[in-house]
Amino acid sequence: MTPLATLQTPALLLDVQRVERNAARMRAAVTDRGVLLRTHVKTSKSIDVARLVIDPERPAITVSTLREAEIFFDHGMHDIFYAVGITPNKLDRAFDLRARGAALMLVVDTVDAAHAVASAARRHGDAVPVTIEIDSDGHRAGVRPDQKDVLLAIAAALVEGARVAGVMTHAGGSYNARSDDELRHYARLEREGAITAANHLRQAGYDIDTVSIGSTPTALFAEHFKGITEVRAGVFTFFDLVMAGIGVCGIDEIAISVLSSVIAVQPDKGQIVIDAGWMALSRDRGTAAQPVDQGYGLVCDADGVPIPDLIVAAANQEHGLVRVRDDSPCPLPDLKIGDLIRILPNHACATGAQHDAYQVFDVECRAATAVWPRFHGW
Amino acid sequence: MTPLATLQTPALLLDVQRVERNAARMRAAVTDRGVLLRTHVKTSKSIDVARLVIDPERPAITVSTLREAEIFFDHGMHDIFYAVGITPNKLDRAFDLRARGAALMLVVDTVDAAHAVASAARRHGDAVPVTIEIDSDGHRAGVRPDQKDVLLAIAAALVEGARVAGVMTHAGGSYNARSDDELRHYARLEREGAITAANHLRQAGYDIDTVSIGSTPTALFAEHFKGITEVRAGVFTFFDLVMAGIGVCGIDEIAISVLSSVIAVQPDKGQIVIDAGWMALSRDRGTAAQPVDQGYGLVCDADGVPIPDLIVAAANQEHGLVRVRDDSPCPLPDLKIGDLIRILPNHACATGAQHDAYQVFDVECRAATAVWPRFHGW
Repeated sequence: MTPLATLQTPALLLDVQRVERNAARMRAAVTDRGVLLRTHVKTSKSIDVARLVIDPERPAITVSTLREAEIFFDHGMHDIFYAVGITPNKLDRAFDLRARGAALMLVVDTVDAAHAVASAARRHGDAVPVTIEIDSDGHRAGVRPDQKDVLLAIAAALVEGARVAGVMTHAGGSYNARSDDELRHYARLEREGAITAANHLRQAGYDIDTVSIGSTPTALFAEHFKGITEVRAGVFTFFDLVMAGIGVCGIDEIAISVLSSVIAVQPDKGQIVIDAGWMALSRDRGTAAQPVDQGYGLVCDADGVPIPDLIVAAANQEHGLVRVRDDSPCPLPDLKIGDLIRILPNHACATGAQHDAYQVFDVECRAATAVWPRFHGW
Repeated sequence: MTPLATLQTPALLLDVQRVERNAARMRAAVTDRGVLLRTHVKTSKSIDVARLVIDPERPAITVSTLREAEIFFDHGMHDIFYAVGITPNKLDRAFDLRARGAALMLVVDTVDAAHAVASAARRHGDAVPVTIEIDSDGHRAGVRPDQKDVLLAIAAALVEGARVAGVMTHAGGSYNARSDDELRHYARLEREGAITAANHLRQAGYDIDTVSIGSTPTALFAEHFKGITEVRAGVFTFFDLVMAGIGVCGIDEIAISVLSSVIAVQPDKGQIVIDAGWMALSRDRGTAAQPVDQGYGLVCDADGVPIPDLIVAAANQEHGLVRVRDDSPCPLPDLKIGDLIRILPNHACATGAQHDAYQVFDVECRAATAVWPRFHGW
């Protein structure tokens, strides 16, 4: 048990109760409606955190790197979807993991990639299940749902060694939604895009079992999941200021914060210098285009209560500059050297990635009760 | 020896020859003019890289975290300046390192901090050398050079246990310079601010030995270093697009790049999807306000030759979207799945921090000849 006051700063604090509440909320939205929740572990990159979130009855995860897949497999997780289009130089590694017993599923969105995967599948004698990525909102990767010919060409290339498992899509555009209506719109786009594409495959005779959609906003705002087999979401694990800004969560649901110490108070410059810069907070400015720009993060007192209009306005590598918002009437709070503050992150995945470990924080005791490692790399 | 084609991507490539040339350039600018070069190791966070840069005749480093200090000390580096204002919760750790033999110097910029350091110095029976931080360009931390009373109050608080070693300043505003004249201007501000403050201390009877200035731009553009005892600089180790954008280096001096594979080519969307997103590149957009915005990085071919007007225009966690600049007549290059590209970083310190290791790259052999670890955390 390490009291807050003796923790080395900056440090990444984790509120386990909030993670459990967030997980319960997502399970109510997804699992309780009969759909598999395939938790994205790229947000936490932590076995200990993931265990709080994954449904023990139907454990299944999504990963963004093969390293996540390997580490989670080594900790007993078998049902894994690597949801980033695979490049040829990663294929042998993916098949090695499958040979060790992982039910690893892949994704492709071009005929060239399908040929590469099918060829490796033949070489390894392993009909790996592969989904085809659908671009349901013009946001990034994938085949448009109406590009039936492309879909069927990819499927035809895949079956020369691999198995066509189904389709997947991610309406990343939902992160830019500004209202509940827009969130529901993205959820519909995602579901309809996936189902349209799945039906093209079925009509062509493919016996598919996976219709995979998801993002935290669309998972929580979907009207229903008819025709969907699984939902992928990750950031709900912690939530963050971007999610709060689009109305997906409240500030008091955000489960990680960066503990920081005051280095100096500079009343003449209207700022407080703290020991959390971008190395501890990340350079993510995901709220910059939102109605409320949170700078590099919203400042709370040591108990996690937001201080009115106080944000990290600028960040260097190991210095943060805390200021009151430009148009606020609030004064600089009465802080002094060594005082502790907590900063809520713009983007939980990015801020988490700056740290080696979570300090598991007991709110009542105001102490860290455990250190949970998180990993980096590919 | 790992051929480029079999490296797992994304990976951080290091060109040792460029680091050695960059180090020689900085030594010519600083060491050869009789001033100590106190290399900032926050850029590389690597023992192996730092060994290429540090002057073996007068080894001295600057650190941004106590973890850097501890790790470098454990690898034989004794002369260390922790150049971020220390918070009270780090003091025992700093004195422990000194008790183990490190010549660790600290910095403060308030009377409160000076009292805290002096008190810890008395408790440990160790008159630690401390510099007073000077704000030479209104950029961040420090006492203005003309605030003689504040300076002397800080010094008076320090000597109640610690030793007033001198002054330090960092003209971070130099990163926003737009011409050689402006760079020279910041170099003058830095030098004159430090000397003015040092003279206030000397006139008050303090026998100081440290007048420390520095940043890569001001170190390379200073007209002279009269009255200066040491120069701190770090980013010159690798250089980056921000430095190239302000005219401090050429693109062909940048010593790190992120090796990435093409996931998919999307001619209809005018983009190429690659396996380096912000997790590999960082969220740093340091060139956004420069005349040439490099997006999330400038794209080169596998040999490191820039492809005209090609940048990483957008980045998700593990996806980068490569596009030609908006107003460019250039076509998308003829790339296909699995092709390798290299991305030059906006900010070397930030991009490096996203990786666990450097792949030491041999340009002639087109292979990685060694893996050099780098560390995270505080």
